[in-house]
Amino acid sequence: MFKILDCTIRDGGYYTNWDFDKPLVDQYIQSMNQLPVDYLEIGYRSIAIKDYLGKYFYSPVYELEDLRKKSGKKLVIILNEKDIRVEHLNEVLGPVRGLIDMVRIAIDPEHLGRALILAEGVKKMGFEVGFNVMYMSKWKQYGDFIKELKNVDGIADYFYMVDSYGGVYPNDVIETIGLVKAETSVKIGFHGHNNLEMALINSLTAIEHGAEIIDATVWGMGRGAGNLKTELFLTVLNSKFGLPVNFNALGNVVNAFDAVLEKYGWGTNLPYMISGSNSLPQKDVMDWVTTRFYSFNSIIQALQNQKEKVKDN
Amino acid sequence: MFKILDCTIRDGGYYTNWDFDKPLVDQYIQSMNQLPVDYLEIGYRSIAIKDYLGKYFYSPVYELEDLRKKSGKKLVIILNEKDIRVEHLNEVLGPVRGLIDMVRIAIDPEHLGRALILAEGVKKMGFEVGFNVMYMSKWKQYGDFIKELKNVDGIADYFYMVDSYGGVYPNDVIETIGLVKAETSVKIGFHGHNNLEMALINSLTAIEHGAEIIDATVWGMGRGAGNLKTELFLTVLNSKFGLPVNFNALGNVVNAFDAVLEKYGWGTNLPYMISGSNSLPQKDVMDWVTTRFYSFNSIIQALQNQKEKVKDN
Repeated sequence: MFKILDCTIRDGGYYTNWDFDKPLVDQYIQSMNQLPVDYLEIGYRSIAIKDYLGKYFYSPVYELEDLRKKSGKKLVIILNEKDIRVEHLNEVLGPVRGLIDMVRIAIDPEHLGRALILAEGVKKMGFEVGFNVMYMSKWKQYGDFIKELKNVDGIADYFYMVDSYGGVYPNDVIETIGLVKAETSVKIGFHGHNNLEMALINSLTAIEHGAEIIDATVWGMGRGAGNLKTELFLTVLNSKFGLPVNFNALGNVVNAFDAVLEKYGWGTNLPYMISGSNSLPQKDVMDWVTTRFYSFNSIIQALQNQKEKVKDN
Repeated sequence: MFKILDCTIRDGGYYTNWDFDKPLVDQYIQSMNQLPVDYLEIGYRSIAIKDYLGKYFYSPVYELEDLRKKSGKKLVIILNEKDIRVEHLNEVLGPVRGLIDMVRIAIDPEHLGRALILAEGVKKMGFEVGFNVMYMSKWKQYGDFIKELKNVDGIADYFYMVDSYGGVYPNDVIETIGLVKAETSVKIGFHGHNNLEMALINSLTAIEHGAEIIDATVWGMGRGAGNLKTELFLTVLNSKFGLPVNFNALGNVVNAFDAVLEKYGWGTNLPYMISGSNSLPQKDVMDWVTTRFYSFNSIIQALQNQKEKVKDN
């Protein structure tokens, strides 16, 4: 059986700036204890960053100690490879040994080599290591990236294909898994975005073709159009494959995030659909959509311009 | 090239009780004139029904005359087979000859024989005829239903598979198309529901396997969890197959329904996911969810009970 990783708090933080009310997090942890989810990613760990970023961007030790006591699941934090070097590891990860089970690393394919050095350091500290490699729809454009994947063996426990733009289809998932499997025997993961409402079918397709871990979040809470919805994934695994699911616990955690959804209103819409289906960066779209300052049509116009520019290059 | 039918007003009427502000309908018609959509289904026609039902449940002649003037598209109305007999046709359809291009008939598979008689009457009046046959996930359980499909040839112009429960997957679509094609050469249509966020992939799969008409609605507005989103479908057809789309017009019509979405809040959620993935009737769930009187968990409990009952039978 493949594993499920819920990263609601970490990925949802893009909307709350990584501030979450403690009672909500506690409700989340308690519900997850009763659900067939294996890993909970509860935030980033980071050296100090200039901008203001909330608690779960730093995941302080006192908080991790508290969650470790309350949670029966494997706990996960993620590092942004672009910000963290091997010399930061003692500061960033030293204090969380014994609290955290897996450390994931968010990786730009351009920096795979640097990420491998960082990951070796993480691995030596005794953590499971997950690679979250972004921009899977463009991997073939990154020179030798695919060939270099053989170096991942023995370092990464999971190697995630991240559909950063939310624009891949089941056939792309199958093709990319084939490319990865030709180079390495690492366990494959999939992190889907929902711009085109493809997160579920892409995840099911990934599993069918051998993926061993899938990411999901409650109500799909996550950057931009959001992710595979945990409640959708579990409901389908229950009806299709007989996975036992405590629907009361699932209802409780969905309910708990209801007010947060009402406030932030993530989910797909026309601007995210356009950016997803044309592999345009999500960050701008999310800024434009969430400030609610721009009309849909001015956003759409800006995206059309980006599309033309991409075509012209 | 397959055809696209937008049925926002007809299917969205389940939320508004078929009342829509006239300026919204006019904006809709005007935007659709600029979009690559072939048919617009703007309501039901019906004999008088006991309950109060709004304008677009009856689609009065003065309204159809107005829309006929404003729209460059083929116009469609739908009949509920359960309410309409062949002797009603003069009253119900006589006055709309020349205004309406296609008449669809919503059909319970159990009443295919009766529907064929009604459809012959409709066809004789000069309309294109669409069959919208419900409950596709259960067709194999309806005795000789599949075999009787040979009688559809020459009567129906389009024969729709309707995923009433919102629970079918691409493989089911492929299998059902195969069953239908073995019996009849009628043009196949697909009307998808979005409980499991499968409407897009199911529709794309249907096209790939020979479907010739697809239903969609703006923001997915439609009964229960709603339908394939017109804006998602067009955006994907644009990026994947180069279909020319006027994104300003698309943005305008999406915008126009924004306030309606805010008010009625359709779309999928855990209760719809559970009912969809277990082929449970949608009407109850929609009543429970939209009154906002019941907690998610009491709805979920009720659905679990229905599931058990179905299993016990």
